[in-house]
Amino acid sequence: MKLLVTENYETLSQITADIVLMRWAENRRVNLALTAGSSPKRAYEILAERLNQVFFDQSLAHFYNFDEITLKDQEYGLTMQALTEELFNPLGIVEENIEVLDAGNYQDYDRQIAEDGGLDLVLMGIGGDGHFCGNMPEFTSFDYGVYRVPIKPGDELYKLIDESSPHTPGEEMVTFGAQTVLAAKKLVLIANGEKKAEIIKQALEGPITEDVPASILRLHPNLTVILDQEAASKLK
Amino acid sequence: MKLLVTENYETLSQITADIVLMRWAENRRVNLALTAGSSPKRAYEILAERLNQVFFDQSLAHFYNFDEITLKDQEYGLTMQALTEELFNPLGIVEENIEVLDAGNYQDYDRQIAEDGGLDLVLMGIGGDGHFCGNMPEFTSFDYGVYRVPIKPGDELYKLIDESSPHTPGEEMVTFGAQTVLAAKKLVLIANGEKKAEIIKQALEGPITEDVPASILRLHPNLTVILDQEAASKLK
Amino acid sequence: MKLLVTENYETLSQITADIVLMRWAENRRVNLALTAGSSPKRAYEILAERLNQVFFDQSLAHFYNFDEITLKDQEYGLTMQALTEELFNPLGIVEENIEVLDAGNYQDYDRQIAEDGGLDLVLMGIGGDGHFCGNMPEFTSFDYGVYRVPIKPGDELYKLIDESSPHTPGEEMVTFGAQTVLAAKKLVLIANGEKKAEIIKQALEGPITEDVPASILRLHPNLTVILDQEAASKLK
Amino acid sequence: MKLLVTENYETLSQITADIVLMRWAENRRVNLALTAGSSPKRAYEILAERLNQVFFDQSLAHFYNFDEITLKDQEYGLTMQALTEELFNPLGIVEENIEVLDAGNYQDYDRQIAEDGGLDLVLMGIGGDGHFCGNMPEFTSFDYGVYRVPIKPGDELYKLIDESSPHTPGEEMVTFGAQTVLAAKKLVLIANGEKKAEIIKQALEGPITEDVPASILRLHPNLTVILDQEAASKLK
Repeated sequence: MKLLVTENYETLSQITADIVLMRWAENRRVNLALTAGSSPKRAYEILAERLNQVFFDQSLAHFYNFDEITLKDQEYGLTMQALTEELFNPLGIVEENIEVLDAGNYQDYDRQIAEDGGLDLVLMGIGGDGHFCGNMPEFTSFDYGVYRVPIKPGDELYKLIDESSPHTPGEEMVTFGAQTVLAAKKLVLIANGEKKAEIIKQALEGPITEDVPASILRLHPNLTVILDQEAASKLK
Repeated sequence: MKLLVTENYETLSQITADIVLMRWAENRRVNLALTAGSSPKRAYEILAERLNQVFFDQSLAHFYNFDEITLKDQEYGLTMQALTEELFNPLGIVEENIEVLDAGNYQDYDRQIAEDGGLDLVLMGIGGDGHFCGNMPEFTSFDYGVYRVPIKPGDELYKLIDESSPHTPGEEMVTFGAQTVLAAKKLVLIANGEKKAEIIKQALEGPITEDVPASILRLHPNLTVILDQEAASKLK
Repeated sequence: MKLLVTENYETLSQITADIVLMRWAENRRVNLALTAGSSPKRAYEILAERLNQVFFDQSLAHFYNFDEITLKDQEYGLTMQALTEELFNPLGIVEENIEVLDAGNYQDYDRQIAEDGGLDLVLMGIGGDGHFCGNMPEFTSFDYGVYRVPIKPGDELYKLIDESSPHTPGEEMVTFGAQTVLAAKKLVLIANGEKKAEIIKQALEGPITEDVPASILRLHPNLTVILDQEAASKLK
Repeated sequence: MKLLVTENYETLSQITADIVLMRWAENRRVNLALTAGSSPKRAYEILAERLNQVFFDQSLAHFYNFDEITLKDQEYGLTMQALTEELFNPLGIVEENIEVLDAGNYQDYDRQIAEDGGLDLVLMGIGGDGHFCGNMPEFTSFDYGVYRVPIKPGDELYKLIDESSPHTPGEEMVTFGAQTVLAAKKLVLIANGEKKAEIIKQALEGPITEDVPASILRLHPNLTVILDQEAASKLK
């Protein structure tokens, strides 16, 4: 594990942006699975600026959503909608470079990734409960590849989505499991802010356990963890 | 995970020998941790033959013992004695290319490996209880780097060594833990014979759990598992 | 450059076969460009035997012909016909895993390789004139990617083909140039027999020059050269 | 070859700084050969700022000077003096992480690099005459490893140093040759300003020839070229 602690969120975001940029600018097909959400928000803004300042052949990079929550009466699920708004549209990523994971294809997806040449980079945040991608403690098993979790009204996740999204949740979440993520060539985990300090401590220094799903990422030979000082404040 | 099932132990051994040979013959320093024991016995014989048939600069490869059980009144422990007899002497590996892990240096060993450039290859067998290196189910924790396990008369391990070795066990075992092993660039796990079929099934298809330590190896992005048909006979 | 000198052609062939086997058995798409011709003949026989002894998922490997000489009134050119006979048929490689380079697509081929994820392995022989792939000294330029060489009756190459093949040559050769080959992740060059000793000396120890095209291969950071003792007999 | 054209020198420098930073922050020994001179000046300033903002274990990175011109009555030569002033001192790189190439050890240096695990990154500029490291057109041969060029009063190089430095030139230059540089895992070439436009065009689009030494870098499978718009202005 490579650990970088940055002075602040801005520096964290600059470094993250450049890591993504350098993988994006490859001279052969690369497969990138980048997280939606708040942690990479500023990094994606910087990336959008960079794309006005740096010119390279963007056509060889393919983008994957690493999880998805289906939504009723919507073509795209929660993650694809967020990625489209936060990443794909602002950065001008065209449809033919976007590989969509959904409830219809998740069973073949590990195979599809292998046929595409494998994942080159997975950029992730960490949840307050230690989840990465869609691997919540309540249903994580480290031996899962891409898998499906049914969602019903009354479930924690159902309520969360129902409240935070204008759409009604569908019947499931699909997500890359630990097997899928750890098969990638490079992993980057980012976290910022005091509210992440406790779970970062557990994930990086506590036991490796399905109760703190992100703890498993430490075992990958090419993991970079980038934290701001607040998120790192409880580390030894 | 790359899975190769071979017709028999001889083919398994030929492939294993050539994997080691190709890493050994690098044009830059490489760091190899190769197991002692019965599984690689024939592979090492083939390697010894190969070294009479293939000429290359052998000086850049460094060899590491990945575990050690100290022995009373002996300079070298159980593993180093076995490796010397089974690997180092028959293959003519000279002392300056052998990096010895022991009870005196284990605390600095992860650091030492990092300063040496990291491990390029770890070749392992699997125990009937699912152990790899010295990670027995009774004291495995996936977050361990190189660590020490005290041994006392009466312990399972003490009795085992006492019976199988002409020497009296010392006070401890030291071993690469999961963190150390999974940080390597490439892992190879070999197993042969019907007696390994059940544990192979558990390790490769069961849950990833400290109760079957080798199950964690599946999460490495560059693991090759080589089995003969008997060891593979219970796989789906 | 990694140099392995083997006692004889049989050992050279065994090692070559296992290098190809290990790349073939990847758990993600891999792209292999393997030479036709006399040098790898025995290696491919051993590979065919291995495929009866070693079971793995063969579906993720794609095979490329790295040069082609078109033939009049023939669907496939000289190289594809040879590869089909020597490699694809004996090894049971199915059509959907074969990527055909020909006069119709050569202009887009560097792009196609990039979109396929790049070449993982190029296995080559060396000609008595120092050529690799179709890069003959008379028209090699190190800055070429995939390129076309027109052939007319009266040309050296025309005569050679006309004599050695039951077919009439077409109007061109197409071939991976140095740019295409050196962009691959790994290169393997094999040569056996006394008749190769002089050109091997020139290619490995002489100046790097377009007059000895294979001399450029030495600059690749991941080149393995495997020779039998006869081919190596003039090296320092 | 990966080509990135940046809007201006500032963006070029930011990206370059982050490329170096990410290699520097490895969790195993890495070997970095970074150029002195005007092109990376701003990148090193940014790096110095970054080191006040980003905290990581710096101890595993080793720094190499890739050429040296000896100076009369001086312990260090021209390059080491420049690197000390521009890179090592401002960035706080300690002596034990600096590997000095000089006239006394150049003959063993390729071997030393191999024993150190090989070069992970070489960051270079390009001279107006197409030179990279110390490979001037007048004495470049692509088959050279680390080599020595004698210098006498009256030589072009002697005059140049004599004029630009407070010190009197010594008797030689030593430099990584093409063999040494192209054996590295990753190469980065940077150039900025209109005055570099013509040589960049020759090096990237012209023939690969010892008359334009940097033209050979294009053949490396992992070369990144970063230019500002002015330096890129003559490219197709």
